[in-house]
Amino acid sequence: MADVLQIRALTFDVFGTLVDWRTSIAREVRTLAPTVDAEAVADAWRAGYRPAMDEVRSGGRPWVNLDVLHREILDGIVDRFDLQGWDDCQRAHLTMAWHRLSAWQDVADGLRRLRKRYRIAPCSNGHIALMVDLARTNRFRWDTVLGAELVHDYKPTPTLYLSAVAAFDCAPHEVMMVASHSQDLEAAAALGLLTAHVARPDEAGPGLGERAPSVPVDLAVDSITDLADRLRC
Amino acid sequence: MADVLQIRALTFDVFGTLVDWRTSIAREVRTLAPTVDAEAVADAWRAGYRPAMDEVRSGGRPWVNLDVLHREILDGIVDRFDLQGWDDCQRAHLTMAWHRLSAWQDVADGLRRLRKRYRIAPCSNGHIALMVDLARTNRFRWDTVLGAELVHDYKPTPTLYLSAVAAFDCAPHEVMMVASHSQDLEAAAALGLLTAHVARPDEAGPGLGERAPSVPVDLAVDSITDLADRLRC
Repeated sequence: MADVLQIRALTFDVFGTLVDWRTSIAREVRTLAPTVDAEAVADAWRAGYRPAMDEVRSGGRPWVNLDVLHREILDGIVDRFDLQGWDDCQRAHLTMAWHRLSAWQDVADGLRRLRKRYRIAPCSNGHIALMVDLARTNRFRWDTVLGAELVHDYKPTPTLYLSAVAAFDCAPHEVMMVASHSQDLEAAAALGLLTAHVARPDEAGPGLGERAPSVPVDLAVDSITDLADRLRC
Repeated sequence: MADVLQIRALTFDVFGTLVDWRTSIAREVRTLAPTVDAEAVADAWRAGYRPAMDEVRSGGRPWVNLDVLHREILDGIVDRFDLQGWDDCQRAHLTMAWHRLSAWQDVADGLRRLRKRYRIAPCSNGHIALMVDLARTNRFRWDTVLGAELVHDYKPTPTLYLSAVAAFDCAPHEVMMVASHSQDLEAAAALGLLTAHVARPDEAGPGLGERAPSVPVDLAVDSITDLADRLRC
């Protein structure tokens, strides 16, 4: 295990790691369309996420925030689910469901404990307004919001992690990136950050999440409260 | 008065508006050098602030944060106060005094009330780590930190205010800039933000602060709690 005594700040992935996007999105889809397979809509929506960001990352289009990408992806999948009848207002409302996602039940308490010892911030592909809304929805108390909007690019671009390290006026080895996705942690570790993997085995559906990291990490935990335990908070 | 019902977010100047830099800096100077005129040191230090930022604003040097500028200014004034004996460690410690400034007594309660209705953030020339430390020192609960580090430039550059408006996903007329300095408010108003002036008549010494704005503003108040009263929070 790396020297966790050197840690001064913790940065967190959000979608999947802290909030349960699949259940939350499906719940809102079901409200609008009770007969549709709401989980399938959530999965199709999320499946469009990485390709949409790749277009920005590759320089194929200027940076736009996730509200823009989420709406485009939604517009692209309504046909598949026979939801063409959703009007602009309904689609706009549903796009904002990503601002209302519910946290996994361990998160609020875990962050509260970790914040006593460490500076904490989200380091997400979500933009600032989205992170602010999720924090208010779920009573997260961040020191600040870091991530995509500070560099107008998306993970795993190195500048995104490094801007978070710089914002806390830390060296990379003084910051621990916390995520449920091995790719995210691999990118952070390559830059010298410490890493903690949080198991979310059902993130993308029953059994369809990372139960364990597929890359070397400094800590592997089951929840944010488990992380607080391990860091003696 | 502008339509304050449209306000969705409040952004705050910090040095002078929320925290009493002069008394706080003088207190720390006095601890290190009991016989020096500590207020004069604070004033000389602050006097170097605008010229140092102007060099960045004009493109004369790349953006550096306020820790760097504060240290350079301090190094430039020690001779004048016969403090050449301060070693690197003492100077570094004193430079960090800007992270430990005390708030005016109305601020914590005023922000707490305003936060119930509005998204709130500092929009300062201070960098993120400095704002995080001031928030922890004074128990401010921000939604996020905005300001200089998001654009790597200093006020009153328009992009700094506009990046704050964008971060809250607002139109300019949905954001109110709160400051004790007319120049700051003039720059924000020119971009379409609403403005509130907070009187800090003793900011730079007895009677040496703005008792009233010298430019048109939407609200002029005596304190952050007064602002909360006026906005019915």
